[in-house]
Amino acid sequence: MEMHSSPSSVLVFILITLITVTNFITICSLPIPLVTPLQSSKQRDTKSNSKQSNKTLFTTHFFPQELDHFTFQPKSFNLFNQKYLMNSTYWNKGPGHHGPIFVYTGNEGNIEWFAENTGFMFDIAPKFGALLVFIEHRFYGESLPFGNNSYKDAESLGYLTSTQALADYAILIRSLKQNLSAEASPVVVFGGSYGGMLAAWFRLKYPHIAIGALSSSAPILQFDYIIPWSSFYDAVSQDFKDESMNCFEVIKGSWDEIITKGSTKKGLWELSKTFKACQAVQSVWSFRDWLWSSYTYTAMVDYPMPANFLMPLPAFPIQEMCRRIDVFPKGSDKIDMVIAAANVYYNYTGDQKCFQIEHKSDPHGLGGWNWQSCTEMVMPMTITNESMFPPYNWTYDDDISSCNSTYGIKPRPHWITTEYGGLRIEQVLKRYASNIIFSNGMKDPWSRGGVLKNISSSIIALVTEKGAHHLDLRFATKEDPPWLTQQRNQEIAIIQGWIDQYYQDLKDVSS
Amino acid sequence: MEMHSSPSSVLVFILITLITVTNFITICSLPIPLVTPLQSSKQRDTKSNSKQSNKTLFTTHFFPQELDHFTFQPKSFNLFNQKYLMNSTYWNKGPGHHGPIFVYTGNEGNIEWFAENTGFMFDIAPKFGALLVFIEHRFYGESLPFGNNSYKDAESLGYLTSTQALADYAILIRSLKQNLSAEASPVVVFGGSYGGMLAAWFRLKYPHIAIGALSSSAPILQFDYIIPWSSFYDAVSQDFKDESMNCFEVIKGSWDEIITKGSTKKGLWELSKTFKACQAVQSVWSFRDWLWSSYTYTAMVDYPMPANFLMPLPAFPIQEMCRRIDVFPKGSDKIDMVIAAANVYYNYTGDQKCFQIEHKSDPHGLGGWNWQSCTEMVMPMTITNESMFPPYNWTYDDDISSCNSTYGIKPRPHWITTEYGGLRIEQVLKRYASNIIFSNGMKDPWSRGGVLKNISSSIIALVTEKGAHHLDLRFATKEDPPWLTQQRNQEIAIIQGWIDQYYQDLKDVSS
Repeated sequence: MEMHSSPSSVLVFILITLITVTNFITICSLPIPLVTPLQSSKQRDTKSNSKQSNKTLFTTHFFPQELDHFTFQPKSFNLFNQKYLMNSTYWNKGPGHHGPIFVYTGNEGNIEWFAENTGFMFDIAPKFGALLVFIEHRFYGESLPFGNNSYKDAESLGYLTSTQALADYAILIRSLKQNLSAEASPVVVFGGSYGGMLAAWFRLKYPHIAIGALSSSAPILQFDYIIPWSSFYDAVSQDFKDESMNCFEVIKGSWDEIITKGSTKKGLWELSKTFKACQAVQSVWSFRDWLWSSYTYTAMVDYPMPANFLMPLPAFPIQEMCRRIDVFPKGSDKIDMVIAAANVYYNYTGDQKCFQIEHKSDPHGLGGWNWQSCTEMVMPMTITNESMFPPYNWTYDDDISSCNSTYGIKPRPHWITTEYGGLRIEQVLKRYASNIIFSNGMKDPWSRGGVLKNISSSIIALVTEKGAHHLDLRFATKEDPPWLTQQRNQEIAIIQGWIDQYYQDLKDVSS
Repeated sequence: MEMHSSPSSVLVFILITLITVTNFITICSLPIPLVTPLQSSKQRDTKSNSKQSNKTLFTTHFFPQELDHFTFQPKSFNLFNQKYLMNSTYWNKGPGHHGPIFVYTGNEGNIEWFAENTGFMFDIAPKFGALLVFIEHRFYGESLPFGNNSYKDAESLGYLTSTQALADYAILIRSLKQNLSAEASPVVVFGGSYGGMLAAWFRLKYPHIAIGALSSSAPILQFDYIIPWSSFYDAVSQDFKDESMNCFEVIKGSWDEIITKGSTKKGLWELSKTFKACQAVQSVWSFRDWLWSSYTYTAMVDYPMPANFLMPLPAFPIQEMCRRIDVFPKGSDKIDMVIAAANVYYNYTGDQKCFQIEHKSDPHGLGGWNWQSCTEMVMPMTITNESMFPPYNWTYDDDISSCNSTYGIKPRPHWITTEYGGLRIEQVLKRYASNIIFSNGMKDPWSRGGVLKNISSSIIALVTEKGAHHLDLRFATKEDPPWLTQQRNQEIAIIQGWIDQYYQDLKDVSS
């Protein structure tokens, strides 16, 4: 018997999907209790070549930032403390020197997390004599404007927007340069994922503050009608299909079996045991979400070396997932097979005795991204019959209604393309902007919303077929494949070109 | 005996100066009852070659605009009606045609006023097959978000900012293009004075919406420490000095005489009669302000042909002012001389029997610009001993304190350069933007805050030595000197180049 979802469970599914879908990008806001900055940092230290311990990576600072830069109401002037991290170990800023400032435009989560996972900046700082600055995004980490009440309702959350965040960065950078007597130092912005979107948009909107941007795995075209709405899940599916057709088919066939089995109380209880849930699971959709997350997140971080960004994973984790499926004898239970695959993601180290399938904790502030995806960051995503996921139709109307019922406000689904562009981006930027690197790894499903072709001689797309979610931004490791080293070397050469040109222009102006 | 101002009168003077200074740009918000759009339009019709009457120049429309584009508070979604005018007479938009859309980015005043004084757009529309759109700036004219309460306090006025205005334009233009099925039509923005600043900034911030900008007499460098603070009044003084050294000296020497004479009740009464005030004047500073305005406004509109922009004036009105001063016999009363000069500005037609020296009416909403100059539009201006005006020291502290006492909020004096840039503009825009014409006439004191040199092959400065405040934007007349016609022809050729390139790019993308 085929299981049909009831309207209410469909709604739950939509919500889960929305959260799941829109939060792939919120690598830092995942409701996965295992992932903490501390663990991540420990893992990195063993895996990377960095000799710095977490403690000496950066110093911590706070900047008094105004709440609303775009209105002048009395409340707009309220201050909050915006956190930023600095590392000046390598800064070449003696008399007559204007060593560059590399700024990470923080995304949705605490800034230490992003700093620790952007080893590329630490790796190249000595070569450039650069000051490193990592700025936390407002409403995340310790930069909560209203403390514990920041996520309370639309009155407070209303100030959590990308435009305000960009203005925060502009104001903080300008103030910092002034305080450090570094007004002639060129600024280059870096960011990955949503942070990469912010880095690119920062260069577009504040070219007088940043001379260039390295925008890694930034799906700035994942809006409106720019790319096909099915792109994201088509890409995840393709990743699995590329490894093994059997693996793809098993996953595709598993969904109905899970829903059918979980339609009775007894079935739910049995599934809880099979999945090794720490507590009895109340909704069958939770199993679906749990598996779903494991595939999509693993596709994002399908790195060619062992890494611990979202979870401790082996090199080529999708290959490993599919290997675990493919070793099952023909006719095995599909549910057992997909659990084995998902365990690559959730338990590669083997130390998990059970899993929090429901009631995941939220150590990095998922609430903030949920708000953003319900206001500006409206990324339409559908799932076709050809995908390995259950088909799903996304509509603006459903989105508006669901966000309205959650927050009492309506999304502005076309705002991002109005404010930042994106439609016919080649035609616009070819005649306009300069000095942006869009880097993408094609294993990462977010790459489909990225800029994948060169737009001009200085708006460059660096695409690696085997790369994944902002892989280039990670610390260099001994296991790095040559194509990754080559990509990073290209980035270094391009950034060096921007800085050289800047110094030359500065000289021309002064002389 | 030399008169010293008391501290309180100094404060009044500062306030007057601030209002005077910062409102030179608010050509439309002047507290001068004589100037109304109706009169201006009548005057224009007789002076210009236009065959259109006011009634057929445009149709009037309203667009439901959201109050706050940069936050998502419940109140942000409140709608107000934004007025815009259209003329589609010449629009070449049949099947396969994508006739351009020329948009005027409205400044501080009702939009009809700007439309009627931007005849250049009407003059060139037939040649380009262009649709004309004039968008009213929020909080001016009929686009008041809170009706009569719009200027009440910072709670309502808080939403009156340039960034919100630019976003209004972006949203309205995008919606209009969609509704008119004109998504492939290129948009060029036009503006003069503050409207010219908005046009340039619009191209800088929304290059995906406008392919280019004609920014006329836009003092985008009149902020922070970019140009010397004395530039504006140095330029006004230079205009008079260029006509006649005697004229300059008489004006320079008149201030003390007026203050001395007006220091007694009897003197004030006599001055009221001499100045032909309609009512007895209460403060001697009012005479100073009245004269002051006449010099600075006349410098702005020192056009080489008769015109009626601020007032009905002859060709070369500064020449006429100085002629009236210079005909006085040596040793004449300086006060009589400067009144004769000011009468060029206030009463060239000779039909004024008396003047409203105090209690000027505010038909176009001066309050709005006062707010803007107390929040974002902080343009530091000092007056040196070499000027023909009384020396004046502007300080940030005084400005903050005065604005705080008026509105209860503090200016953000460095916001404009943070948000839009301006410092080292050549170095930044040379490597970044494209397709902006900065046109300036050097008679206009605002030109000193403008971009006066080419920055790149497509960021062009068109400077005329004898031009004045956005003269190029006015309707062509039979009296136009050849250099003006040449300037406009250059603008037409450059804009044609942008549009040709756009169509070529469109073809390349489609093919």
